[in-house]
Amino acid sequence: MSLIHKTAIVSEKSKIGNDVSIGPYTIIYDNVEINDGTIIEGFCEIGVSNSLSDQKLLTIGKSSHIRSHSIFYEGSVFAEGLITGHRVTVREKVKAGRGLQIGTLSDLQGHCEIGDYVRFHSNVHIGQKSKIGSFVWIFPYVVLTNDPHPPSKTLLGVTIEDYAVIATMSVILPGAIVAKGCLVGAHSSLKGETQPDMVYAGSPAKLICSTSKIQLSDKSGPAYPWREHFKRGYPEEITKLWPAT
Amino acid sequence: MSLIHKTAIVSEKSKIGNDVSIGPYTIIYDNVEINDGTIIEGFCEIGVSNSLSDQKLLTIGKSSHIRSHSIFYEGSVFAEGLITGHRVTVREKVKAGRGLQIGTLSDLQGHCEIGDYVRFHSNVHIGQKSKIGSFVWIFPYVVLTNDPHPPSKTLLGVTIEDYAVIATMSVILPGAIVAKGCLVGAHSSLKGETQPDMVYAGSPAKLICSTSKIQLSDKSGPAYPWREHFKRGYPEEITKLWPAT
Amino acid sequence: MSLIHKTAIVSEKSKIGNDVSIGPYTIIYDNVEINDGTIIEGFCEIGVSNSLSDQKLLTIGKSSHIRSHSIFYEGSVFAEGLITGHRVTVREKVKAGRGLQIGTLSDLQGHCEIGDYVRFHSNVHIGQKSKIGSFVWIFPYVVLTNDPHPPSKTLLGVTIEDYAVIATMSVILPGAIVAKGCLVGAHSSLKGETQPDMVYAGSPAKLICSTSKIQLSDKSGPAYPWREHFKRGYPEEITKLWPAT
Repeated sequence: MSLIHKTAIVSEKSKIGNDVSIGPYTIIYDNVEINDGTIIEGFCEIGVSNSLSDQKLLTIGKSSHIRSHSIFYEGSVFAEGLITGHRVTVREKVKAGRGLQIGTLSDLQGHCEIGDYVRFHSNVHIGQKSKIGSFVWIFPYVVLTNDPHPPSKTLLGVTIEDYAVIATMSVILPGAIVAKGCLVGAHSSLKGETQPDMVYAGSPAKLICSTSKIQLSDKSGPAYPWREHFKRGYPEEITKLWPAT
Repeated sequence: MSLIHKTAIVSEKSKIGNDVSIGPYTIIYDNVEINDGTIIEGFCEIGVSNSLSDQKLLTIGKSSHIRSHSIFYEGSVFAEGLITGHRVTVREKVKAGRGLQIGTLSDLQGHCEIGDYVRFHSNVHIGQKSKIGSFVWIFPYVVLTNDPHPPSKTLLGVTIEDYAVIATMSVILPGAIVAKGCLVGAHSSLKGETQPDMVYAGSPAKLICSTSKIQLSDKSGPAYPWREHFKRGYPEEITKLWPAT
Repeated sequence: MSLIHKTAIVSEKSKIGNDVSIGPYTIIYDNVEINDGTIIEGFCEIGVSNSLSDQKLLTIGKSSHIRSHSIFYEGSVFAEGLITGHRVTVREKVKAGRGLQIGTLSDLQGHCEIGDYVRFHSNVHIGQKSKIGSFVWIFPYVVLTNDPHPPSKTLLGVTIEDYAVIATMSVILPGAIVAKGCLVGAHSSLKGETQPDMVYAGSPAKLICSTSKIQLSDKSGPAYPWREHFKRGYPEEITKLWPAT
């Protein structure tokens, strides 16, 4: 049984699973599948139709939680355990794995691929054609761009590989590749290719050192790979599969 | 005949044209004129009153499309063909030409002039006293500032001339002039005057080269002036008037 | 007597003072105290419950004005005269003094302390563990960070002392201290400690000069300390207590 607020407007054509909660003033459009145990808070629009989504279904995996004032277009697929902040905007043709977290005010422009257990903090902008691996962290006010010569007809998305971290207010330029385990420092502007497990910083960003050189502030050990000391919120059956250093 | 959702709250004092669509939970206040063929989506507030708008009318030109969760104050004038993303905030005393596009989350602080067919991508911040020409492009997380010594009583807006392009996450400092056809690179901070058709980049931004030196990534020709190869979405009767290089 | 719009959803458990106005479609949850003379506009959510707020009350001081589409969690305390723009998000455990202004789209992550008469312009991001003095100004797209080695378990908030000013699109790095009366220039990235009444700019930010070296653009005198020439919006009983230079 689901709990739908009396002020919510839910299309009869939408598919709503068991134990789904839908908050006040939220609108669920036709072309939507919301799976079991998901919470959609108030003031949301789920399954907005537009000409670029080829009338494909929006699928929200089970046990997800979409916070208030969020907008999702039709034509994207999210595996189980999606969690969002407030005022998230997600356009068509996003394909995302399990356990994605999208922070408040983030803006996914659609047409992108995202692996498992990726975390976007607040106010992250993901341009079209981005390819993001698994266990990636992107911090506030980071922009993933795609147009090498704006405005042009070319969309050259960026690639962010597994375990990479992009710190606050950095721009990843069109076509750039952030390799596995890299750290891009705050307020950087990164172009081109990178080597795995290295720190890049500055504008334009330069190779600074190996991430293994960075110590935690409490001197308890190296700060990277972060998966050695930070497992909060990941399921144990996942973290036990993480590769050793 | 217009299509007004039953949950919309529309003032009897507002002027609503023919074939206007007003979405669920949207509020239209008194001092508003919405012209023929315009779509206002849900959760919007159109014509918010405040003490700085001198009780002037908000005019939304014909064939406009304001996406959901947007807020417009009274006292601004938009010519036909305004298109917005979601969660746009537009304060009083904006005077804008035809075909303006304002991306999701953008914030126009009011008291500014905008020419024809200007495009603001997502999350653009337009400070008061900005003067923007026609056919300008402003990309995500760009801020047009105005206070040379914050906080002070002086508002020294920026000027952006026709065909200029400002790439992602750049700050245009108070009083700066981005000349006709200039490109400001991503993550730059620009001060003072510029020469037409030049590239400026860095923080502080420096003159890099003529825009004519930049080739498209597919080697099909020069990337600038962009109007030579990019005409998507502009009416043909407009693009045929664009000056040759 | 209070003015509650008929579409507002107001918990009977909430405490609503006299002369409080609550706008259309706004939701007031249980654990909220809204004091006399306060205006809450439409589409807001006030007192959102979550597991991190220890079920503590949200207190909104008297004569406050929260603009539309704003979200406040339970567990924060705001003294009188809070004024917000639109779409503000405020998490739990903020403790703020009188006369706080929070601009449109700003995002307070909670667990922070804010003095009296602080002004956040649009789109400011305040990380957890921030400590902000009184009479501070923070301009658009500034981020106060807190994690020295993201992601880690350490939260090392920043400190912003009285009268300090942080200009547009700057990042204040974890643990940094912006001393009394300092100015951080636009598009800077600041780390470590600072000396009072100095200008810091660049990325990484360097000491540029004393703030006393900066003249107002109209040559009417020094631009800093700003309190010598800018008193707009502060009560006279407050400004007469401001220290002389």
